[in-house]
Amino acid sequence: MATEDSRQSRPLYLEDLAPGQRFTSGTYPLEEAAIREFAAQFDPQPFHLDPDAARRTLFEGLVASGWHTAAITMRLLVTGGLELAGGLIGTGATISWPKPARPGDVLRVETELVEVKPSRSRMNRGTATFRCTTLNQRDEVVQTFTGTLLVWRRGAR
Amino acid sequence: MATEDSRQSRPLYLEDLAPGQRFTSGTYPLEEAAIREFAAQFDPQPFHLDPDAARRTLFEGLVASGWHTAAITMRLLVTGGLELAGGLIGTGATISWPKPARPGDVLRVETELVEVKPSRSRMNRGTATFRCTTLNQRDEVVQTFTGTLLVWRRGAR
Repeated sequence: MATEDSRQSRPLYLEDLAPGQRFTSGTYPLEEAAIREFAAQFDPQPFHLDPDAARRTLFEGLVASGWHTAAITMRLLVTGGLELAGGLIGTGATISWPKPARPGDVLRVETELVEVKPSRSRMNRGTATFRCTTLNQRDEVVQTFTGTLLVWRRGAR
Repeated sequence: MATEDSRQSRPLYLEDLAPGQRFTSGTYPLEEAAIREFAAQFDPQPFHLDPDAARRTLFEGLVASGWHTAAITMRLLVTGGLELAGGLIGTGATISWPKPARPGDVLRVETELVEVKPSRSRMNRGTATFRCTTLNQRDEVVQTFTGTLLVWRRGAR
């Protein structure tokens, strides 16, 4: 049912997706206070909480929790980085943190669509696998994330 | 250098670890307000923010962001679920969310050590792969997470 016009529109349905498509998010400035606040709630370790203690660790300074980087990545995707009809609903992923994010970093996410699979059992949906790379302002990769998301057919929900 | 006594002590070093070891965290009661607060910051989608809108989605009610479940899992590990010397420093993981966590759930994490690998190039460290299963109060699995963490040799830092 998709027309050429609807293929250009947002949000995106299964019919709009093809491997190789690329998407870019906005940016997220990461402040020290936010790193410490997230860590106090969810990852209370010295290298995420205390700049002095962090200097004496492997990281040689305060770094964001990998889960904070993951959460910011999700925010960047949800707020314009990847506009899928019905929202971003993931079933699983692989994730890696080649370098930590640090205070003052400005993060963005570049996404590439890897694969689209219509469901065999449910006509109204499918899954799509996206490779999301989170970069800082020096284009250093702070996270790679390959996730499988639910995608809906146009008019089928 | 590890003795039988030191093998029982915490925190754990590389020498203390053997595949099959199991660890259990404390518990984390998940409240609706916390689900909505996390979502507003990091995953602003209707099924994480608004109970009424959530009822009309696939989830049929408010659910926690998978990244919130991941962050809570990390908190449970850091606060006693897995006491590694030098802290919990992960390089990468696979993650899945078989069921969403919901308001009123009480989460806990059960961890099994899968593999320990001494580093070939750095004598003072190695890596260990842990399978962390996050369960609710009905023993339903809300997240599986298999992650590789840095582990240190005793006395080698």
